[in-house]
Amino acid sequence: MIERLCVIGVGLIGGSFALALKHAGQVKHVVGCGRNEANLQRAIELGVIDEYQLDPAVAVQQADVVFIATPLGAMEKVFAAIKNTVPAHAIITDAGSSKQSVIAAARAVWGELPVNFVPAHPIAGRENSGVEAAVVALFNAHRVILTPVASTNPQAVATLSALWVAVGAIVVQMDAEHHDEVLAATSHLPHVLAYALVDMLAKMDDRREIFTYAAGGFRDFTRIAASDPVMWRDICLGNQEDILVLLDQFIDDLARLRQKVAGKDATGLLQIFQRARAAKLRTLDDSRKDQQ
Amino acid sequence: MIERLCVIGVGLIGGSFALALKHAGQVKHVVGCGRNEANLQRAIELGVIDEYQLDPAVAVQQADVVFIATPLGAMEKVFAAIKNTVPAHAIITDAGSSKQSVIAAARAVWGELPVNFVPAHPIAGRENSGVEAAVVALFNAHRVILTPVASTNPQAVATLSALWVAVGAIVVQMDAEHHDEVLAATSHLPHVLAYALVDMLAKMDDRREIFTYAAGGFRDFTRIAASDPVMWRDICLGNQEDILVLLDQFIDDLARLRQKVAGKDATGLLQIFQRARAAKLRTLDDSRKDQQ
Repeated sequence: MIERLCVIGVGLIGGSFALALKHAGQVKHVVGCGRNEANLQRAIELGVIDEYQLDPAVAVQQADVVFIATPLGAMEKVFAAIKNTVPAHAIITDAGSSKQSVIAAARAVWGELPVNFVPAHPIAGRENSGVEAAVVALFNAHRVILTPVASTNPQAVATLSALWVAVGAIVVQMDAEHHDEVLAATSHLPHVLAYALVDMLAKMDDRREIFTYAAGGFRDFTRIAASDPVMWRDICLGNQEDILVLLDQFIDDLARLRQKVAGKDATGLLQIFQRARAAKLRTLDDSRKDQQ
Repeated sequence: MIERLCVIGVGLIGGSFALALKHAGQVKHVVGCGRNEANLQRAIELGVIDEYQLDPAVAVQQADVVFIATPLGAMEKVFAAIKNTVPAHAIITDAGSSKQSVIAAARAVWGELPVNFVPAHPIAGRENSGVEAAVVALFNAHRVILTPVASTNPQAVATLSALWVAVGAIVVQMDAEHHDEVLAATSHLPHVLAYALVDMLAKMDDRREIFTYAAGGFRDFTRIAASDPVMWRDICLGNQEDILVLLDQFIDDLARLRQKVAGKDATGLLQIFQRARAAKLRTLDDSRKDQQ
């Protein structure tokens, strides 16, 4: 049981974490912190937090766990703001979608990563953002990746893991470099492509009609593109290198596929489509095995 | 009430059309036709069709409506096979995802489009294919686009429209050129991108792990890439020109976005993401208005 949890950035992720921990009986008192006072008042009304502070330096005082769920671009400022007041025993963690950039930001402020800082990334989200979208079950059966460094206190990792498990998440550990590579492929690149497609079609003359006839394919893309733009801008900057590698590879692959369409290369096109489908189906089989 | 419906290509679309018409009491007898006899026997067991013929020339005899739901690449052969035996009064229609190529294939066989041929495209589908996936409600509340030409018999269009309405579809008419432009944007390009992404990631070393950590974004892409590869090969060839125009534009746009990531252009990235999100939300508003 945590006596005092401080959530900095009370939106979908921060709010859901607080709600889920309360629901699981894992926390006594939640202090919310953010720049938008109306949002924090709403969070109190919704029972997500018990009190709020506008100043992070004040919010973290006496906290046992500090959960930072702001966009990536705000993290270094938050670290600097809490540096002198966060209790030494407090576990500090975050929900950033790229981990090397968070670790770099923390090192820029503290010199070394504080031993009780456990960088983390819950792989959960939806197209709605803000505290109104927060729900108890957001992390249920979702993976949370922890990326501690060599100097991280194992006890802090264990305590944080237990909290995530208590809210139904599946906890995995890997190093930050590997996290960033995998997430660039599974999340960052797909989001960039979805944004690029929706933006391109939105600029076309028959935009209204195109969105009306959105068939299966495009509907999925538009759903993705409804995600929070600031969050995704920060992810593109935070995980820039890994995203660039994959973007370049994808542009090359797409140019090759374009040549197959232009050349009416029926065999070449079928090969790509069959390979992709087989990979998808093979993975379905694998994940069924995992669940057994 | 149709006395005799002939479905050529008894898969997801052909099977669901037959099932839905039966369920709506709109058809007495359904003849299925295809190359795979085991599939046709299964279609009888499932109550989708009442009898089957392996030869299209025989299957269409005495039919009142002929529904062709094969992949696009097979249509010209089917047209040639039925040309001499399809009754003059029978309405011929199809479910092809590109319409100019279907009309061209029909003209190649008949010289002119038969007056009772109504090219059509039901905008419905799922990642599962085959008659086992056929369901009564597949077209319910989905759009069906009819693309008659100037010489098409208006009575045939009216009769076919009524059938689609009877199975719950929303019928829309436009010319084939416009259909192909709109569908290239809303369906064909998104599918091509999804296939390209899944294929690229499937070739990477940590494939297994990448598919395991598939977050929201990528899961949607893999779902799309599970569609029937032959169908999509044929669509790429059938709607080649419109797809190429959009693919080229997308590759250009993506290269520009890549430069913004490489240059850490926070403002430029945010603009793209905000514009895409706004387009998506604006369309949501529009479609809510449509439903009122």
